[in-house]
Amino acid sequence: MKILIDAMSGDNAPLEMIRGAEWAKREFKDHQIMLVGDENVISDVAVKNDIDIEGIEIIHSSSVITMEDNPLSVVRDKRDSSMGVGLKALSKDEVDAFVSAGNTGALLTGATITVRRINGINRAAIASILPLTTPVLLMDSGANLTVSSDNIIQFAFMGSKYMEKIYGIDRPRIGQLNNGTEYNKGNALQVESYQILSESGLNFVGNVEAKEVPFSACDVLVTDGFTGNVFLKSVEGMGKFLLGTLKDVLTTNLVTKVSTLTMKEKIKDMKKRFDSTEHGGAPLLGISKPVIKAHGSSNAKAIKNAVRQAIFFVETGINNDISIFAADYDDKKLIADAEKMYGSI
Amino acid sequence: MKILIDAMSGDNAPLEMIRGAEWAKREFKDHQIMLVGDENVISDVAVKNDIDIEGIEIIHSSSVITMEDNPLSVVRDKRDSSMGVGLKALSKDEVDAFVSAGNTGALLTGATITVRRINGINRAAIASILPLTTPVLLMDSGANLTVSSDNIIQFAFMGSKYMEKIYGIDRPRIGQLNNGTEYNKGNALQVESYQILSESGLNFVGNVEAKEVPFSACDVLVTDGFTGNVFLKSVEGMGKFLLGTLKDVLTTNLVTKVSTLTMKEKIKDMKKRFDSTEHGGAPLLGISKPVIKAHGSSNAKAIKNAVRQAIFFVETGINNDISIFAADYDDKKLIADAEKMYGSI
Repeated sequence: MKILIDAMSGDNAPLEMIRGAEWAKREFKDHQIMLVGDENVISDVAVKNDIDIEGIEIIHSSSVITMEDNPLSVVRDKRDSSMGVGLKALSKDEVDAFVSAGNTGALLTGATITVRRINGINRAAIASILPLTTPVLLMDSGANLTVSSDNIIQFAFMGSKYMEKIYGIDRPRIGQLNNGTEYNKGNALQVESYQILSESGLNFVGNVEAKEVPFSACDVLVTDGFTGNVFLKSVEGMGKFLLGTLKDVLTTNLVTKVSTLTMKEKIKDMKKRFDSTEHGGAPLLGISKPVIKAHGSSNAKAIKNAVRQAIFFVETGINNDISIFAADYDDKKLIADAEKMYGSI
Repeated sequence: MKILIDAMSGDNAPLEMIRGAEWAKREFKDHQIMLVGDENVISDVAVKNDIDIEGIEIIHSSSVITMEDNPLSVVRDKRDSSMGVGLKALSKDEVDAFVSAGNTGALLTGATITVRRINGINRAAIASILPLTTPVLLMDSGANLTVSSDNIIQFAFMGSKYMEKIYGIDRPRIGQLNNGTEYNKGNALQVESYQILSESGLNFVGNVEAKEVPFSACDVLVTDGFTGNVFLKSVEGMGKFLLGTLKDVLTTNLVTKVSTLTMKEKIKDMKKRFDSTEHGGAPLLGISKPVIKAHGSSNAKAIKNAVRQAIFFVETGINNDISIFAADYDDKKLIADAEKMYGSI
């Protein structure tokens, strides 16, 4: 399997990307790790930092998508960027998966236009794992600010399949993020989606309030990308905030300072949970080939974990399942539309 | 000043409501504390629990709004409920403020219909204080699921006035909850509101991401009630979740168990911060007279604190400031409308 890493992406590019590639090379020996980026820059950085990139194939690209670039630039004036070249290689089956820590909007736009969505899937979603007691997949965490109930049901199906295949959860519990648990809570979108999810055959556990999500209320949380983004960032922010408060508590006086040493490890565990580098990245579910969005602040370890995730993604054949669902979903819609149009003839 | 408490409201009614009233009576001697509810029940519970309610005036009511009741019942078949009678007393100026831990929807509906909004204010909002390093007022935390940019600017003004008067903050910083900080982030609502807030004369600090809210990014956070509700509950849920994790860390082995004793107080502080009973309640800003919504799980202390909040609310004359703003805002809108209509004559 060939996994391609965007060497020029993220806050710590290219050094941590190259380090991550080298780490992945050692850890996943059965697979071919590749980098896309400026050949000279990659070689120079590798030599200067004593990173052994032998065996890592490099695809050359001459520009870089920045965080400030318009998302569409990846398919317009910056098709020669590492992201643009990488996505093109994926679309032409020259590689099996693509990992990038770059501009989220550009990656989503580029993936949608260059790699394309799975037939029948109306919107791709950024599927983020929330760092809680049990992992919770958030669909969508920011790709689609406004969505329809059609999108929500597709998010639910794709998320369910992902948690089943990647996390081995049998019949993942789907919850809809809402301002109350009753069926009639929320706006028209939530009320309509509730109805459709109830009849979907998925393991829909109903509406879930934000305060219950940390306590394992569901395995997949579906919502629009705006609410999802606010929710994801509040979880991240509160995690950071409370760990800071905890540090204050633990360094208050000498006694607590001493005891802190004994607790060091446990607290490390807590920090680890909120450390995005542990979770790899977020797949763009609904795209016809595996694209993994790594966190912008990714270090080598995060990239290595994102590569592992990409390998799992390919091996488990998630996209095949999603394709079958989407084709079936599309059929049903076409039939319903035809009935509406011609039903009275 | 006469502060009326809904004796039959909340999960712990009537006992904790009566206890709260007695506590408030002792703490705020200059003011008259009153209860609304079933006279016999209140007397019985007071006697049985040895609570001295002498000096607390009781207004009799014969029914109760439950959490399951339709919000409109408070102005229809349950006008004789403690909430209905209490709101009526407030509207007739028989009392100066009303505190209830009951059904939020009913309280908001009843307040809007019986007590009425301030002239020119289009929507009342539930103004919740987020328990963070510095207090942040969330406007709206759940009253209005969908809003217009007109509502957002009014929320911003009311919230600014509240934080200035109650928390003594000079020119409170207004932030708009959004999925990014740039001016063009979010849906049409956020883009439009950003523009209007920028020109409002308020201390608008721009869009704020959820992850920055715990780190004092603003004093007032404006958003629609759906997103606000999800955000509020995620802050509550994450606080509870992380305190639980912390407890695990601290009771791992004997050494940490011993040290826990020395830290007890500090951790108590942390818990206190996330304890809703400390913050009293959330005022319904935009209603023409003070209505304080206490948390459903309120105990005596929370009720006592909500009474203090009600007293502040009246003393600082917030509603007078909001009235002046609303009249001015209304004038400007009428002029703008007239210009649109007759401008071409």
